[in-house]
Amino acid sequence: MEDGHATDILDGTYRALCQHGYADLTLRDVAAEADTSKASIHYHYGCKDQLFVALLDSLADQCTERVAAIDGETPRDRLFATLEALLVDDDDAPPRAFRTAMLEVTAQAPYDEAIRERLVDLDEFLFAEFRAIIEAGVAEGQFDERVDPSRAAEFITTAVTGAHTREVGLDRAPDRLHATMLRYAERHLLAADAAEVAP
Amino acid sequence: MEDGHATDILDGTYRALCQHGYADLTLRDVAAEADTSKASIHYHYGCKDQLFVALLDSLADQCTERVAAIDGETPRDRLFATLEALLVDDDDAPPRAFRTAMLEVTAQAPYDEAIRERLVDLDEFLFAEFRAIIEAGVAEGQFDERVDPSRAAEFITTAVTGAHTREVGLDRAPDRLHATMLRYAERHLLAADAAEVAP
Repeated sequence: MEDGHATDILDGTYRALCQHGYADLTLRDVAAEADTSKASIHYHYGCKDQLFVALLDSLADQCTERVAAIDGETPRDRLFATLEALLVDDDDAPPRAFRTAMLEVTAQAPYDEAIRERLVDLDEFLFAEFRAIIEAGVAEGQFDERVDPSRAAEFITTAVTGAHTREVGLDRAPDRLHATMLRYAERHLLAADAAEVAP
Repeated sequence: MEDGHATDILDGTYRALCQHGYADLTLRDVAAEADTSKASIHYHYGCKDQLFVALLDSLADQCTERVAAIDGETPRDRLFATLEALLVDDDDAPPRAFRTAMLEVTAQAPYDEAIRERLVDLDEFLFAEFRAIIEAGVAEGQFDERVDPSRAAEFITTAVTGAHTREVGLDRAPDRLHATMLRYAERHLLAADAAEVAP
């Protein structure tokens, strides 16, 4: 397999997805974006479903790398930087059009086992990331020792998911939840002497 | 307009939606479920999009009535009963098939202004309900006076949305978030002497 060409196809799939949404995505759109032929896409990835699963795998790798690369000396810094990466629009964040398409993909997941598996993996990765940060924070005494890392991580992961759903479906900017989330963390996760704002 | 027949059509639309999902829903399915003709549906509701908006309006009314009918003498009781109604599966709760279809509808909202307006109304209703409960709880001294009702209501509404998205897309039971949410409320919303579990 020519790796460069296979990567070009995935990149084209990503761009076509942002442009057309998931329901209307065709291999013809992908071929046009990747400047290749439908035959070449079939050769490298098989059918549309398989191509899409390959894209999700590639996006999961990128998301994992992006989160792993987040700076932060302390658990508090890491928590806040991760929330910022997930909830604040900046040049590094995936574009709104992509999150719109991803909600379509999520709505499709009940009907497609391969898609659901990938979404579950991503969700579990995020959950585990938050739990590890909170566990470290509790162990180091920066977070309140009464916090249950699994419960808090479940709460945060669910709220982040909800923020993305509301952003796409209801046109609600996730920034407001970001501010609320920081306050939640300051008030309820951090130990009293580690919080920087008044309760 | 024969009100009974118009209502039968909406009921049939609801059942057809649960059975076929939103993307695959046809007026033929609705006609079969409502035991009527496509012509009669057109006469009462116009096109599929208009029928669907009428269904959303009717569902919003039912949801509003259901939440308004929630028992609870104190703000704490009302908060917990509302969370239970939204996050715990029981005979009164809408079936899973309906929530699956509603995620498809939400994913469609960016492309359909009339749908988005209805979803926004429902979201605002829930948000206002939570805010009113929390405001009353703070005013009566049952909730911690440092709680900001708008922020807490935004957080809860977003987490409930996220729980529904994860339930449908990732097959995650919302019960676990329900338990986490109760704990969050006990620990962080209620005044110290009103909480019934240890922090």
